[in-house]
Amino acid sequence: MAAGSTFGKNFRVTTFGESHGPALGCVIDGCPAGILLSVEDLLPYMDRRKPGQSKFTTARNEDDAPEILSGVFDGKTTGTPIAILIRNKDQRSKDYSDIAEVYRPGHADYTFDRKFGIRDYRGGGRSSGRETAARVAAGAVAARFLEHYGIRAHAYTKSIGPVSMNSFDPDEANDLYLPDHKAYLDASAYLEKLISGGNSAGGVIECIISGVPAGLGDPVFDKLSASLAHAVMSIGAVKGFELGDGFSVCNSTGTENNDPFIPDGNGNITKSSNHAGGILGGISDGSDIIFRCAVKPTASISCPQQTTDRNGNTKELRIKGRHDPVIVPRAVVVVEAMANLTIADALITSRGDRL
Amino acid sequence: MAAGSTFGKNFRVTTFGESHGPALGCVIDGCPAGILLSVEDLLPYMDRRKPGQSKFTTARNEDDAPEILSGVFDGKTTGTPIAILIRNKDQRSKDYSDIAEVYRPGHADYTFDRKFGIRDYRGGGRSSGRETAARVAAGAVAARFLEHYGIRAHAYTKSIGPVSMNSFDPDEANDLYLPDHKAYLDASAYLEKLISGGNSAGGVIECIISGVPAGLGDPVFDKLSASLAHAVMSIGAVKGFELGDGFSVCNSTGTENNDPFIPDGNGNITKSSNHAGGILGGISDGSDIIFRCAVKPTASISCPQQTTDRNGNTKELRIKGRHDPVIVPRAVVVVEAMANLTIADALITSRGDRL
Amino acid sequence: MAAGSTFGKNFRVTTFGESHGPALGCVIDGCPAGILLSVEDLLPYMDRRKPGQSKFTTARNEDDAPEILSGVFDGKTTGTPIAILIRNKDQRSKDYSDIAEVYRPGHADYTFDRKFGIRDYRGGGRSSGRETAARVAAGAVAARFLEHYGIRAHAYTKSIGPVSMNSFDPDEANDLYLPDHKAYLDASAYLEKLISGGNSAGGVIECIISGVPAGLGDPVFDKLSASLAHAVMSIGAVKGFELGDGFSVCNSTGTENNDPFIPDGNGNITKSSNHAGGILGGISDGSDIIFRCAVKPTASISCPQQTTDRNGNTKELRIKGRHDPVIVPRAVVVVEAMANLTIADALITSRGDRL
Amino acid sequence: MAAGSTFGKNFRVTTFGESHGPALGCVIDGCPAGILLSVEDLLPYMDRRKPGQSKFTTARNEDDAPEILSGVFDGKTTGTPIAILIRNKDQRSKDYSDIAEVYRPGHADYTFDRKFGIRDYRGGGRSSGRETAARVAAGAVAARFLEHYGIRAHAYTKSIGPVSMNSFDPDEANDLYLPDHKAYLDASAYLEKLISGGNSAGGVIECIISGVPAGLGDPVFDKLSASLAHAVMSIGAVKGFELGDGFSVCNSTGTENNDPFIPDGNGNITKSSNHAGGILGGISDGSDIIFRCAVKPTASISCPQQTTDRNGNTKELRIKGRHDPVIVPRAVVVVEAMANLTIADALITSRGDRL
Repeated sequence: MAAGSTFGKNFRVTTFGESHGPALGCVIDGCPAGILLSVEDLLPYMDRRKPGQSKFTTARNEDDAPEILSGVFDGKTTGTPIAILIRNKDQRSKDYSDIAEVYRPGHADYTFDRKFGIRDYRGGGRSSGRETAARVAAGAVAARFLEHYGIRAHAYTKSIGPVSMNSFDPDEANDLYLPDHKAYLDASAYLEKLISGGNSAGGVIECIISGVPAGLGDPVFDKLSASLAHAVMSIGAVKGFELGDGFSVCNSTGTENNDPFIPDGNGNITKSSNHAGGILGGISDGSDIIFRCAVKPTASISCPQQTTDRNGNTKELRIKGRHDPVIVPRAVVVVEAMANLTIADALITSRGDRL
Repeated sequence: MAAGSTFGKNFRVTTFGESHGPALGCVIDGCPAGILLSVEDLLPYMDRRKPGQSKFTTARNEDDAPEILSGVFDGKTTGTPIAILIRNKDQRSKDYSDIAEVYRPGHADYTFDRKFGIRDYRGGGRSSGRETAARVAAGAVAARFLEHYGIRAHAYTKSIGPVSMNSFDPDEANDLYLPDHKAYLDASAYLEKLISGGNSAGGVIECIISGVPAGLGDPVFDKLSASLAHAVMSIGAVKGFELGDGFSVCNSTGTENNDPFIPDGNGNITKSSNHAGGILGGISDGSDIIFRCAVKPTASISCPQQTTDRNGNTKELRIKGRHDPVIVPRAVVVVEAMANLTIADALITSRGDRL
Repeated sequence: MAAGSTFGKNFRVTTFGESHGPALGCVIDGCPAGILLSVEDLLPYMDRRKPGQSKFTTARNEDDAPEILSGVFDGKTTGTPIAILIRNKDQRSKDYSDIAEVYRPGHADYTFDRKFGIRDYRGGGRSSGRETAARVAAGAVAARFLEHYGIRAHAYTKSIGPVSMNSFDPDEANDLYLPDHKAYLDASAYLEKLISGGNSAGGVIECIISGVPAGLGDPVFDKLSASLAHAVMSIGAVKGFELGDGFSVCNSTGTENNDPFIPDGNGNITKSSNHAGGILGGISDGSDIIFRCAVKPTASISCPQQTTDRNGNTKELRIKGRHDPVIVPRAVVVVEAMANLTIADALITSRGDRL
Repeated sequence: MAAGSTFGKNFRVTTFGESHGPALGCVIDGCPAGILLSVEDLLPYMDRRKPGQSKFTTARNEDDAPEILSGVFDGKTTGTPIAILIRNKDQRSKDYSDIAEVYRPGHADYTFDRKFGIRDYRGGGRSSGRETAARVAAGAVAARFLEHYGIRAHAYTKSIGPVSMNSFDPDEANDLYLPDHKAYLDASAYLEKLISGGNSAGGVIECIISGVPAGLGDPVFDKLSASLAHAVMSIGAVKGFELGDGFSVCNSTGTENNDPFIPDGNGNITKSSNHAGGILGGISDGSDIIFRCAVKPTASISCPQQTTDRNGNTKELRIKGRHDPVIVPRAVVVVEAMANLTIADALITSRGDRL
C-alpha cells in the first residue's frame, strides 16, 4: 500500500523501526484466530537471523528478543492484530558524523536524502538490514499458520561468489546455511580471502515451498509468481528473482520446457517434471514451488572508496564498524519469511474463489 | 488488491476480459487531470502488440481498436476513471471441446480448474496473452503522463534462444524487435527451424527507463525494484526478473559492484557506473533504470504432447490453431507498458513524501 | 482506494463513466466462481432506477440495457472480473454553455473545477446521479451471490418532506416506493405542489438486511456499521446515516438501549429487542440490520437562483431540462445496491477469520 | 483494508492492542517527512481522553504515556513509519470469570465469539474503548501535519441526553467538553441522577473542521463525506453520522437547502450559507466542514440485566468495575482524531489530482 511498509492483502504485515532507534517491530493484521502461538515459536527464526554468531556475520550484539504485545490470548491468536516489539540494545554511541554527510556507495543514503530531504543516518536507519528482524518475526507467525496446512518453506544458500552447491545434504549444518560440506569449505576459504582484503561477496539463495495446494494466486496482476517476486525483491540486497528453470528457459524449447500432466495413481493429477517451479498461469499447481534470488555483495566494505558528500564534494570513504562480509547466510531466513508471508496471504485470499 | 486484477496504488489499472468473450478492456483510476489524450495516442502501442504482423506471430485477425469510454473531455483527461474498451472480433467458431477436457502442458487450464472449479476454456480465457492488450492500452496512458516529466521506457528483445544481441543499433527495425541486424538474422533462422518442427522458443527482454528522477519507490516492501518485479513477473510467460547487473552480482565483489558517487559538474551528484540498475535501497537514484526478464518458450506447440484430461486419463494432445512460435517480440511492448504503469504509480505516490 | 472509484476489499467494484459520455459501467473483481448470472438478473434492479417511469422522475430516455462483457461463461461466474457496460443513449445535443460557465448551487461544478481544473460539465459529468446505474448493476451481482446465503437487502422510502410512513404494507406498490398508501397520497400531493413552484423535496430511505449471519464486519476501523455508512454516504445526495435507533439513542439510557440476549429456543442465542440495528461492536449479531439515510432535496431546481460564474461574477441561473423533483424514490435501489455490495464484501472477508 | 485495523489510503494508521494486554499502539505509514514532532505534541490529546479525570469518567488509572519508537529523527518526521507505544499499566488482577462466560448486553462479547471462536474477554479486549488511545495518538500526528496548512478540527459535546447546547462559549471549559455553562450544569444534574441509578446516558458530538481548502475528497465512492462517515462510525458507540444540515434536509426544499455561490470580495468564490456542511459532490468546497455523530448510552451499567451465558442459559448480570456513565466527553477527542486522520489522508491523496 501507499507508503510501502505493509505487505499482503488479507494476511497483512506492517513493519516499523530504524537500525539505531529505540525499537523495531511489526503488526500483523488478518492472522486467523485459533493458532497456537508464543514467543518461543518466534525464537528459532530470530536466532537464525541474529548477528554475531559466526565470523561471517557482524559482531553487533543484539538479543533480538521479541515481545508479543497483542492479538494472542490463552496461548492462541484471537484474530486481532498481533504486534511484535524488538528493542534495539546495542545502539553504539559512536560518532556517525562521517556517514551523516558522506554518501556510501551501494547504500540508500543518497536516495533517502533525495526522497525525504532528511534521513536517520545512524546505521542506515530504515534501510538497514536490521529492518528484516521484524519481517522474520512476522514470517514465523505465518509459518505457524501454514503448518496447519502442511505447507513449509525451506531456504538455503545455493552459491557464494563462484562456489555453488553440487549436492544437497539435509544433515549438513553450517554457518553459511550451505547444505553441501565441500562447497561450504570452498566458500569459507573464498570469504576469508575477501575479508582480509576488506572486500565482500554475493551469492544465490534458493527456496523450496512444499505442501502448497493447487489453486493459490490470482490470474492477472497478482499471480503467485509476481507476489513472490515482489516479496523477495523487497529484501534489501536482492537484485534478481527467478522461478523454476528461471533464466535458463530462454535457451529451452517448448517441448523441453512444458511439464507433462500425468495421473498420480491416486486419482489425482500431477506433473512428471517441474520446469515451471510449481506455478502455472500465476496459480500454484500442487508441485513444489522453487525459486532463487540473487544477493549482491555487501555494500559496506572497509577498503577505501571514492564518493561525494551531501554537497557534491569528492570524498574518500573508509567504512568502519561491524559488517557482514556476505549477506547471503543471514538473508536465508528472511527469504523464508517472505515466502511464508506470501503463501499465507494467498491462502486466505483464495478462500474467496468459490461460492 | 484482492482478486488480483488491479495494479497500482494511486495510478491504478484494472483489466477485464477473456480471449474469446465479447471484449477486453481496462479502467484507469487515479490518472491526473489535464493530460492530452486521444485514441490516436494508444494506437502505436496497440499496433506493436497486435497479432498477425509477421511470420513469427499468430495469424489471429484482430483490429485491436480501442474505444475510450470515459475520463476524457475536450481532448484532456479529467481526473475521473478512464475506461478503454477493445472488442474481440475474431472469435472463431471452432470446436473447443478438445481443450475443454484436456489439460495443455505449460498452460493454466489445470490450475484454473483447481482454483475456480470452472473456466472459460476458449482460447485460454482469462489466462490468454490477449489479456495484455488491455495492459498495453493502459500503459499508453501512463506513457502520456510520464512524457510530461521526460520519462520514457524503452524495451527490446535482448536474446532469442541461444542468439543474443551483441550491439545496440537504434535504427534497426525488425519484426523481432531485436536491435542488432546480425542477431536478428540468426534468431530468424533459429525460429524457422523450430517452427518447422512444431516447436517454440524463449528469450530475454531488456528495458531501459530514462529520465526517472531520484526519489521514486518506497524504502521497505514497495521498493521500486520490488514493484517492477511484481509488474513484470505478472506477464504470462515471464519466469525471471533482474535489475542492473542482476544474477551476475553473485560473482562480483563489493569493490566491483558498488557504484561510486561523483559530482556531475552541474552541482549535482551522479554515479560513475550503474551496476545497481538505477535503484538504491528500493529508491530511484536518477540513473537509467535497467532490467531484464526471462520469457519461456510458447507453451502452445503443435507437435504431440502427453497429458491428461480432467478426469486424470492419459491423453495425447496435438494443439491446432494460431500460435506465436516465440512470445518475446509481442511481449516487448507489454514489458514497456508494465514499466510505465509502475513508474507512473511511483511518481504520484512520491508526491506524499514531504511536507 | 486512491482515486476513489473502487469500493470493497475482496468483493470489489470499480465504476466509470460520465452522464453524457459514450457509456457507463463497472468492473467487479473478486466475485466468487459458480454463481448463476445473466443480464436478466440485472434488469429488475436497473428498471427500478431507470428514469422516465413516473411524473416524479426525470424524463430522460435511457434503456439502461447492461451488457456483460466478461467473467461469465456457460451462464456462471468464473471468478474473473465481471465487466458490465451501459451505453448512454439520450445524450441530448443541447447547449451546455450555461452550466459550463456558471456554478449550480448544491452541485459539484465548483468543487470539480477546484479539484481537477477541468470538468465534463455535460449533465454533471461524473457527479451525475447517472453514475449510480453502474452501482445498481454491480449491486445486482452482489445480490445474486448473497441469495445463496439467504441474505436479502430491502430498501424503501420512509419519508418525503414532512410526510412519513406510519405502517408498512408489503403489498403496496407505487412510484415513490413508499409502502404506505395513505402516506403515498400525501407525499404525492406535497411533491406536486413543489413541482408547480419549480422546487424540490428530500426524504429518508430505510433499509433492512435480513439473513445476515453473526460475525460479519471487523472490530476496529472496518466495523460493518462504518463500512455501511461509507457505502451509503457515497451516494450523491445523502447527508446522514444512522443505524438501529440512530440519533434517538442520544435521548435513551443504558437500561433502555441495551438489547438483552435470550435463548432462541433452538439452542442458539438471539436478542429480545434490536435497538442496535443488528450490529454490536462493528460485527453483525444475527438480527436484521436496519439503517436509514437522509437524502437532500434535488439541487437542480427550475426557479431562479443567485450564483456566480467561473470568474466569480454574480449570475442568475435558471436550470432547464429534465430533473427529478425528489431523488428519494430512484435512490432506494441504489441504497439497496450499496448494502448488498457491503455485505458481499464483508462475507468474503470474514472467511479469513478462523484457522 | 482486509482485517480492518488500518485506516487511510496514503496517510495510513494501523492500531493494535487489547484493553488488558501488555500495550496498545499504532503505526502511521505515509506521514510526510519534515514535520516537527515529539511526545509532547501527543500529550495534550492523550490527556483529554485519559480516564480518571472527572466523576463522569472511569476511575481506571492509566498514565497513557506514549513512546515514539520510530520515524522521528532530530525532532522531525523522516517519512518512515511512526510507531507509538502505550503500555497498559492498570491491568487489574480481578477475576474476569463472570464476563468470560456471560454476554454483556450492548457489548461485542457475543459477536466476537461468533466471529473468531475465541476472545480476550478481559475488559472487552480489542473492543474496549481503550483502543481509541492509539487513535488519539495517531490523530495528534495528523493534527501536526495539518497545522502546516492552517487546518484544524475542533469537536465538542453538543448534547447529553435531553440537554442540548444553546450557545457556544469558546471560553467555557468543563469536564463534559460542553461549551455552554448553563447546559453543562443541566447535563451534570441529569448524569448524577443516572449514576445514582446505575444507569447511563448518550449524546451528540459536533465537529467543525476549519481551513480545509476546496478540492479534497474523491467524486464517487471515496467522497470526503463518506470517508468522514466511515471514520466516525468506526468509533465504538457511534450510531449515526450527519453532515451539515444532516437529517433535517429531509424537511427542507431545494430553494432553502441550496447554498448560493457568491464572490468573496477578494476575487474568489464562497457560499452565502453552509447547509451542505462544507462538502459538495463529495469534495470540500472551502467552507467549514461541520458534522455531528450520535453516541449511544454506555453499555456497561451496574443495575441488573437479563442475558445469557455462552451456552445460551439465561443469566442475571451485574457489571462491576469502573465505567463511564456517559462516553461522550471522552469521545470528543476521538472524533477530532478521526477527523484529522481523514483530512490528512485526503490532503495527501489530492496531490495526485492534477498533472
